[in-house]
Amino acid sequence: MKLKNDTPSTIDMRVKGMPGRMQPIPITDIGKQGWNLLREELTLPVAVLKNSALQHNSDWMRRFLAAGNCLFSPHGKTSMSPQLFEMQINDGAWGITLATSHQVQVARRFGFNRILLANQLVGKQAVAYIVEELRNDPDFDFYCLVDSVALVNNLAQAVREAGIARPLQVFLEVGCEGGRTGCRTYEQCMDVAQAIGDASPFLALRGIEGFEGLIPAQAGVAVEQQVRGFLDLMVKVAHQCDADQRFSAGPIILSAGGSAFYDLVVQSFADLALSQPYVIVTRSGCYLTHDASMYKRAFQKITDRSAQARELGDGFIPALEVWGYVISRPEAKKAILNVGKRDVSHDQLPLPQRWYRVDSKDKPQPLADAHVVTQLDDQHCHMTVPEDSPLQVGDMVQFGISHPCLTFDKWRVICLVDDDYNVTGAVETYF
Amino acid sequence: MKLKNDTPSTIDMRVKGMPGRMQPIPITDIGKQGWNLLREELTLPVAVLKNSALQHNSDWMRRFLAAGNCLFSPHGKTSMSPQLFEMQINDGAWGITLATSHQVQVARRFGFNRILLANQLVGKQAVAYIVEELRNDPDFDFYCLVDSVALVNNLAQAVREAGIARPLQVFLEVGCEGGRTGCRTYEQCMDVAQAIGDASPFLALRGIEGFEGLIPAQAGVAVEQQVRGFLDLMVKVAHQCDADQRFSAGPIILSAGGSAFYDLVVQSFADLALSQPYVIVTRSGCYLTHDASMYKRAFQKITDRSAQARELGDGFIPALEVWGYVISRPEAKKAILNVGKRDVSHDQLPLPQRWYRVDSKDKPQPLADAHVVTQLDDQHCHMTVPEDSPLQVGDMVQFGISHPCLTFDKWRVICLVDDDYNVTGAVETYF
Repeated sequence: MKLKNDTPSTIDMRVKGMPGRMQPIPITDIGKQGWNLLREELTLPVAVLKNSALQHNSDWMRRFLAAGNCLFSPHGKTSMSPQLFEMQINDGAWGITLATSHQVQVARRFGFNRILLANQLVGKQAVAYIVEELRNDPDFDFYCLVDSVALVNNLAQAVREAGIARPLQVFLEVGCEGGRTGCRTYEQCMDVAQAIGDASPFLALRGIEGFEGLIPAQAGVAVEQQVRGFLDLMVKVAHQCDADQRFSAGPIILSAGGSAFYDLVVQSFADLALSQPYVIVTRSGCYLTHDASMYKRAFQKITDRSAQARELGDGFIPALEVWGYVISRPEAKKAILNVGKRDVSHDQLPLPQRWYRVDSKDKPQPLADAHVVTQLDDQHCHMTVPEDSPLQVGDMVQFGISHPCLTFDKWRVICLVDDDYNVTGAVETYF
Repeated sequence: MKLKNDTPSTIDMRVKGMPGRMQPIPITDIGKQGWNLLREELTLPVAVLKNSALQHNSDWMRRFLAAGNCLFSPHGKTSMSPQLFEMQINDGAWGITLATSHQVQVARRFGFNRILLANQLVGKQAVAYIVEELRNDPDFDFYCLVDSVALVNNLAQAVREAGIARPLQVFLEVGCEGGRTGCRTYEQCMDVAQAIGDASPFLALRGIEGFEGLIPAQAGVAVEQQVRGFLDLMVKVAHQCDADQRFSAGPIILSAGGSAFYDLVVQSFADLALSQPYVIVTRSGCYLTHDASMYKRAFQKITDRSAQARELGDGFIPALEVWGYVISRPEAKKAILNVGKRDVSHDQLPLPQRWYRVDSKDKPQPLADAHVVTQLDDQHCHMTVPEDSPLQVGDMVQFGISHPCLTFDKWRVICLVDDDYNVTGAVETYF
């Protein structure tokens, strides 16, 4: 596909990371400026995406999913970058998953037609927007979740009042006690399925959805076992909805799979005996950029579990890096850097991985493990360093991040770089 | 002053909070749309600023500072909204304080001339930008911090090589052991002061700076006593620099004071026997919007300590609110709302304060204290509710936030509202 974006955005020195003395340019010209991160031609702190890692990760996921006979609707909330969505669609994604009405608005504006809102659709503006888009664009293929009779009735009323000629496609969301959204029990699922049936022809039940990534830990039970139990409940609900003829025309869709357990989803949903054809849709958002901690560990577990994943060779590579300067060495074992909570995710503290002395001929060098971030303020990073740390005021440090979703949203423009940190382009985000 | 902003930004449905069906409009027209939050004419989640609270807080701080004979350079990093900077300058602020080179670029772009970079100025692009601005604009009155001989030497070299006709004005930064930037000891301060003297005429020592808001807690010592001790060290350094004739021409500037202890700063810096005139500059960033928790408590302590503050009548009022919908009631004691870490600060969890049933004639009603946020995900809020909670799917909930800095940066456009939640305009942010 090609992004529907009439005029490329103009980028100027108000955009974080851009040099102060630049003239405004179209974002499409950023790769033509000859900038290089290590030559200090950007203003730090800055986030960059490595082209080679993006390509590698994209290719890995495509091969994994092809082997599993599974459709892919990557979660766009991670990057909220239509240029990366486009890359994902061009790589074969079935659609784009999103979390909020605002995110749907952004994706629609850039011309994406198949959208899975992995959330309940609530609110006058949000519902009216979707209904009007369904009315005006026959190619708009939209799905959202329902987990309550109340919401089913609200949505059915809105569709009926709007008088559009086709139903709103919904997935029945299965949840778990102590979790987020989603019906807690099989019985609740059946009640909601009944309500969707009663709401025909305004709503159409197209599938069963769940998110296995947030199941509360249970003492003495391995998380994989909990995830399998949850996926089994989804399958049970799917079987009963099928037996009750609740599903509308078209293949039944079974969707689960964040970034940590999609291998189990593919296994659990394989070879079901449903009366209609069905497809599996997984939704990982973080595979494309990966990270240096949380998803690194999750991916290690996927390869431990899945022979299919191991056979694909080298796994994901972190693509998203944040760079900052050492701005003070106020104590023998402390460095302060100009990277803060506004620049990098702080659910997990960033990992200082490499350093670079400006104007040197060397490449960035690994930092010893004893360099540890102990605190982030809004605009500063406190780092404990060994007494013999090479770091001086003015040195650059590269951080690995975790997790990507909460780093992407700190940046409106993220430069794409080659392996030598030449800027080859940029992506824009819409948070 | 009047903002130097040739063309107002165009706002469309890609901006979070804007309705999906809007046509693109100049931001200056947002107040003309007739939108009302409670009539669901914005897409939730949404952040709003209450005009009446902004005016009240602005007025309070002006009266407080006038009584203390103190200049004010509010920290712009809080809002990064040039429209709010303009309001602060029109209210009598001496300048705008900022934390990063990027923030300085934004403020310069909108025509702000007096800028206190309350941070070390590090990096090729950052230094080159400031030097060129000093060269090109004689009205640009810029100050930054230094806390090391290494940085003094780097900056002096940059100014010398650029051949500009005036010095870079610096403040010597006093810090504390275990703190952030700033010289740890009196002796280190004297070394840096000496280096600044040696760097004449390229650097000019204009004052002494410190940030008292991040002093590590010490067992058995009241925080106020620690803050006073820190401010006393700043005064001692100022006296010695004065005795050593380290200060360049113009009044000596003593600057401290975040949003929690500015009353102590005004007290500690009053009536010093320096040989030259001096001025006090405080820098609170959060007073304008205040908040519902952290700064609420800090302000209570200020009024406990300061008769002068008490005499000014009603104190600050929270101006920044975030609103979301209940999207699921999956358990009897649980509600899920569409507000997450990408919408509101999560250092401290937001406080659900009021709720509103859409299409009702009532005003928003207070929520019982038993409604407590227990977890934020990227796009969701988990709330524990009492069994008899009135909340249903589709109800709106208003959150008080803490703290403002990390809520502002989640929004590119924030609507201004009157007390009935009519949208009267909007401010733009640049993070």
